Amino acid sequence: MIRPYFLALEKGHPPLPLDEVIDQLAFDSQGLIPVITQDATSGQVLMFAWMNRSALEHTITHQRMTYWSRSREQLWCKGETSGHIQQLISMSFDCDGDAILCQVEQRGAACHTGRQSCFYLKVDNQERLVQVTGTAEQLTT
Amino acid sequence: MIRPYFLALEKGHPPLPLDEVIDQLAFDSQGLIPVITQDATSGQVLMFAWMNRSALEHTITHQRMTYWSRSREQLWCKGETSGHIQQLISMSFDCDGDAILCQVEQRGAACHTGRQSCFYLKVDNQERLVQVTGTAEQLTT
Repeated sequence: MIRPYFLALEKGHPPLPLDEVIDQLAFDSQGLIPVITQDATSGQVLMFAWMNRSALEHTITHQRMTYWSRSREQLWCKGETSGHIQQLISMSFDCDGDAILCQVEQRGAACHTGRQSCFYLKVDNQERLVQVTGTAEQLTT
Repeated sequence: MIRPYFLALEKGHPPLPLDEVIDQLAFDSQGLIPVITQDATSGQVLMFAWMNRSALEHTITHQRMTYWSRSREQLWCKGETSGHIQQLISMSFDCDGDAILCQVEQRGAACHTGRQSCFYLKVDNQERLVQVTGTAEQLTT
């Protein structure tokens, strides 16, 4: 989406107040924005989830990843019960302010199945099959 | 979201027909699913976008990234005008089938500003500022 606020930043701009930028982020009609979580060391994409403004503020303040759980309709402090917390290392917004990338230090596994990453269903394009990779050694929450 | 089809795969499963899995993906009320695009070599997250089923089929068939442009409301064959195409290297679905991760070989820049990645707005948490990083050397489409 072309959005004037972000368009004006494209060629460079002095640092902006964080709260001003957050005000401009493209939270959807449910107040949510997509979040990509990546391992800061390995670069592996660990998971995809959503934040509302409160989850975003919580994550920034505490440097621990907090999402919005769409199924439970509540803040989801990642690792609260499993211990598999994600320490925030860096955060970026994209060019039109409609997605957030977070690099984290992952304790334990990111996926509730016990796998390191949630993206374990691999497309085998030639055979038109999907491989279920990895082993769920433990179920975590 | 807990979804029975994907729940049944968690502890491992023989390969599944691709079409069957695509049928189960969580396309939203607008027929769209989130897509994370990552550089297959560097691991850098390049962009976040959306696909409808047609864009997904096009991407799989041609091994070139094709998204759904929400602003133009049409298929968006990435790099069609700029030449900055993305060759699909691998594709994965996540544990509940509501996001797609694509690893690509990026020709040129992923971002329309000419930057390698769209995620160039970096949060400086301590100062509560956002830094506009990189330089837009060229505007591409």
